[in-house]
Amino acid sequence: MKRIHNKEDIVQVGLDIVLSRGFNATGVEAILKQANIPKGSFYNFFSSKEEFALAIIDKFVADRVETLYPIFSDESLLPLERVKRSFEALIADFEGNDCSKGCLLGNLGQEMSDHFENVRQRLEQALQSWTIGLSGLLLQAQSEHTISADMDAEMLAENLIASFQGALLRSKVKKSSEPLRNFIHFYFDRFLARK
Amino acid sequence: MKRIHNKEDIVQVGLDIVLSRGFNATGVEAILKQANIPKGSFYNFFSSKEEFALAIIDKFVADRVETLYPIFSDESLLPLERVKRSFEALIADFEGNDCSKGCLLGNLGQEMSDHFENVRQRLEQALQSWTIGLSGLLLQAQSEHTISADMDAEMLAENLIASFQGALLRSKVKKSSEPLRNFIHFYFDRFLARK
Repeated sequence: MKRIHNKEDIVQVGLDIVLSRGFNATGVEAILKQANIPKGSFYNFFSSKEEFALAIIDKFVADRVETLYPIFSDESLLPLERVKRSFEALIADFEGNDCSKGCLLGNLGQEMSDHFENVRQRLEQALQSWTIGLSGLLLQAQSEHTISADMDAEMLAENLIASFQGALLRSKVKKSSEPLRNFIHFYFDRFLARK
Repeated sequence: MKRIHNKEDIVQVGLDIVLSRGFNATGVEAILKQANIPKGSFYNFFSSKEEFALAIIDKFVADRVETLYPIFSDESLLPLERVKRSFEALIADFEGNDCSKGCLLGNLGQEMSDHFENVRQRLEQALQSWTIGLSGLLLQAQSEHTISADMDAEMLAENLIASFQGALLRSKVKKSSEPLRNFIHFYFDRFLARK
């Protein structure tokens, strides 16, 4: 069994388990057992399970940035194409997990927003950062006339991300990525396409 | 404290708690305590917590039908207007809960789809029924030329519901119904509007 040496390793193991089982269904004991670490270690690193949730959100966001940044900044592609490819990359990840798990931001948003204010705020920050990154590309697409300029780019970015999350959730229940593929089709071939 | 007499009452109390706290965070004991019923009663009615989940889904769907059916069948309104009003009614419900709780189908879909196959199937059925109801209205809207006829009505219905669920989740994290209002704006004023 792999030996865990530091906080980063506990966060990685915890992220995997929470993505798979959810936050409330995951006991600290299960994380410790899977990570093969002594009981006391968890509370050496985290003052509470809520603080642990914040750490796995930060890790998830860092991983997500690593996936999306190269796509967002690929100047060989038109800005709108980068937006589309960024979602396609996340869909490929989801398909690689047999249409399970989904997005930690959505999962914890669903489970924890009403009861853990610090977690809600951290999720809100992460979603806003994603929205701002995406709206920069949409503004460029507007200035290049690939999408209509009379939409608020930030509102549209938020809507795109929300609709992606909804399609991800629908795909998780359907155990098929068809709703995600339809999200790509409707938004990029129809809703945003210049007539 | 209100006295619980039958299975329906337990389901109602359980639905309220699970909508508020989630499934995994809700212990059977908490339901029994809030419902003021003796411990043994729960397992007289439900062989497992999973069977209880199925019962609260059925109750939620019945309540949802009661909200949506009069709107779906209101022939004084154009079909597309009925679609829009049906979502607006659900948004009003959510606002009435201070932007908390959300939709049980989405919440349990997120929490349970990967681990409780019977629950996943029940949720899938419920989402498909909703999709079929909505696609009937979209087909009418297409035959009346209020929306473009070259979209598959059932795919579009599924996409609308998924995007609504995503906007609901985003609103739950933001603690503001703005993303839901933007969903209405983008879909009904722009994406589906005939140019």
